Amino acid sequence: MKLVCGHVISKDALNKLSIQNKLKYPYCPLVPRDVLHRLLEGLQTADKNGYGDGQHHQGLLPESKPTPVVGIGLDSCVIPIRHGGLFLVQSTAFFYPLVDDPYVMGKIACANVLSDVYAMGAVEIDNMLMLLSTSNKMTDKERDTIMPLILQGFKECAEEAGTSVQGGQTVINPWLIVGGVATAVCTQNEIIIPENAIVGDVLVLTKPLGTQVAVNAHQWLENPDRWNRIKSVISEDDVRKAYQRAMNSMARLNKIGASLMHKYNAHACTDVTGFGLLGHAQNLAKHQKHDVSFVIHNLPIIAKMATISKACGNAFGLLQGTSAETSGGLLVVLPREQAAAYCKDIQAQEGYQAWIIGVVEKGGRTAKIIDKPRIIEVPAKDTEGELW
Amino acid sequence: MKLVCGHVISKDALNKLSIQNKLKYPYCPLVPRDVLHRLLEGLQTADKNGYGDGQHHQGLLPESKPTPVVGIGLDSCVIPIRHGGLFLVQSTAFFYPLVDDPYVMGKIACANVLSDVYAMGAVEIDNMLMLLSTSNKMTDKERDTIMPLILQGFKECAEEAGTSVQGGQTVINPWLIVGGVATAVCTQNEIIIPENAIVGDVLVLTKPLGTQVAVNAHQWLENPDRWNRIKSVISEDDVRKAYQRAMNSMARLNKIGASLMHKYNAHACTDVTGFGLLGHAQNLAKHQKHDVSFVIHNLPIIAKMATISKACGNAFGLLQGTSAETSGGLLVVLPREQAAAYCKDIQAQEGYQAWIIGVVEKGGRTAKIIDKPRIIEVPAKDTEGELW
Repeated sequence: MKLVCGHVISKDALNKLSIQNKLKYPYCPLVPRDVLHRLLEGLQTADKNGYGDGQHHQGLLPESKPTPVVGIGLDSCVIPIRHGGLFLVQSTAFFYPLVDDPYVMGKIACANVLSDVYAMGAVEIDNMLMLLSTSNKMTDKERDTIMPLILQGFKECAEEAGTSVQGGQTVINPWLIVGGVATAVCTQNEIIIPENAIVGDVLVLTKPLGTQVAVNAHQWLENPDRWNRIKSVISEDDVRKAYQRAMNSMARLNKIGASLMHKYNAHACTDVTGFGLLGHAQNLAKHQKHDVSFVIHNLPIIAKMATISKACGNAFGLLQGTSAETSGGLLVVLPREQAAAYCKDIQAQEGYQAWIIGVVEKGGRTAKIIDKPRIIEVPAKDTEGELW
Repeated sequence: MKLVCGHVISKDALNKLSIQNKLKYPYCPLVPRDVLHRLLEGLQTADKNGYGDGQHHQGLLPESKPTPVVGIGLDSCVIPIRHGGLFLVQSTAFFYPLVDDPYVMGKIACANVLSDVYAMGAVEIDNMLMLLSTSNKMTDKERDTIMPLILQGFKECAEEAGTSVQGGQTVINPWLIVGGVATAVCTQNEIIIPENAIVGDVLVLTKPLGTQVAVNAHQWLENPDRWNRIKSVISEDDVRKAYQRAMNSMARLNKIGASLMHKYNAHACTDVTGFGLLGHAQNLAKHQKHDVSFVIHNLPIIAKMATISKACGNAFGLLQGTSAETSGGLLVVLPREQAAAYCKDIQAQEGYQAWIIGVVEKGGRTAKIIDKPRIIEVPAKDTEGELW
């Protein structure tokens, strides 16, 4: 049957899942962001000693000892290889389930891994590897129900991307892990090195923000303490719909957005994930060749999630652009005169909106959100029986 | 200072480690093999539905929809790509620490990941990604001491392999995880597709068996119940030396063994890891083009580990070839007249022994160990102050 979130799941699988359909509880708490930040700080020294260096901006000619064109500073790496002016573009990501539906979780994990490669403009993916762990707290029955659905979701998403999964590893762990590796071998003109933003360019975002807020709000439906804090501003139905929208958005590939970057001469791009819109915008700004800054005026957000965020005293940082996203959209720097056409083309090909959210000004390679950004509710109007 | 196991560690690091130098206890139990096997069985259905298929043996010409030359059935994949007759060789592995020294653990993880690519004859590695999780049970101090050493070990091993680490991800997890991804883009003649064994060939093994037994015996030094079961057959000193040998062996790259496969016309190769010598031999046999079987006569084993295995009632399966190895040697199928020279060349270049352990006979693509295999103690004679 086709669910409201747009994916198809067999009745059989649904029946099996009704035995125990929670992937997240109690196995898989999310990693608190402050802990992750502290950890990354803790690893800084090792980084400086050469584990990676995102500051390199070498020319594109392979050398005898290749220097990465894009290193660890951004989420994927672009490395010249020995053969015929080709480049290796790779990314890896793995994390813990954040939605209850294992099939969708597999799709999200795959879309999330691919997104980093797409952000470099590379759309022909040569291979994917899958990284999995089952949870040692699952029963055999849970494992045998859940894991094949995750595999299936991941695999089908890879096929949708025009590639396939030809390797991987599975281990056993207290928490369920799902992730992977995407690899593309590209010619130079298939890649957009994300460093050419110029004053006058505009910023486009291809998916709405708020996935993390929606996922959390949905969990709170089963947590009266938490739910009481937001129930005055949102209905259960609205939370469920936002959750379906978040799942749909996270499982959607950034492939068409990436492909159209070439057609509309994008100057730079990143995808929006764990560090939120502002975090990734700042990181992208830091890597620019010219003296530019990114100024964000508009925040497209899954409908009602801004309201929830405010009701929680902005605990998520959604309106500050620091709320983590999973498998978020592309943040694309485009020539002003091409941006509207880029958005229209995405709408025409995929039926999804994209938004011009900011401008590139002269500045010191930073990014900011203006004081009172315009919140764009996505969708603007709720339509009965339709997701967007 | 240089330790007996051959690696160098700073006094500072040693002092820091003396605060808490156990990576394995209590965070990181190994995954019982039977559980892993059951899990893999549980995933079989998904596999058959296309998650992967190790049975493919297509020709080497890239097609419009590339079919992997080597798929999930072996531990690395070889995939034709769009460009100039090139192939993508990739492998990934991640696991839990099994030695107490974080620096060595980083090296072992790196050598283990690379090993699968080396087994295909590919020795020019284009990139590595690192997969890490810290344990949420570590204190900040433990984390800040241990993680940089793991990173350093991994990075230095990658450099020793002539490549570098240009990406990866770090998460937080109950158990510490360390692993990575190795990628090589190769021309056809840089790869040895492991399917050309013929009757009359011989089998060479490039590292001794028994790493898992040595690691376990070393843990038992701190577990009186377990230690009492083996103390009549081995001294504490012998266990410690075996453990140092195992660490040294696991941290050693299979690069030279892989490189020499080209010089001596190897017909097939696999590396020996989680499924033990026999498991990997059987898997390799299954992938052969000709009607052959592998018969193993000799088992080179880290000194005294066969004795321990017997004292435990063969619980490890070491003499049956089913004892798991980590970062084990290459099992290489070579023309009979080249095998001795191959072994000698490894000895000359690295100072390590390799052994002819079996023969290729006519048969049904299976592998076996003869009833009473000859145990080769490695080293044959213990030399005071020397590891091998």
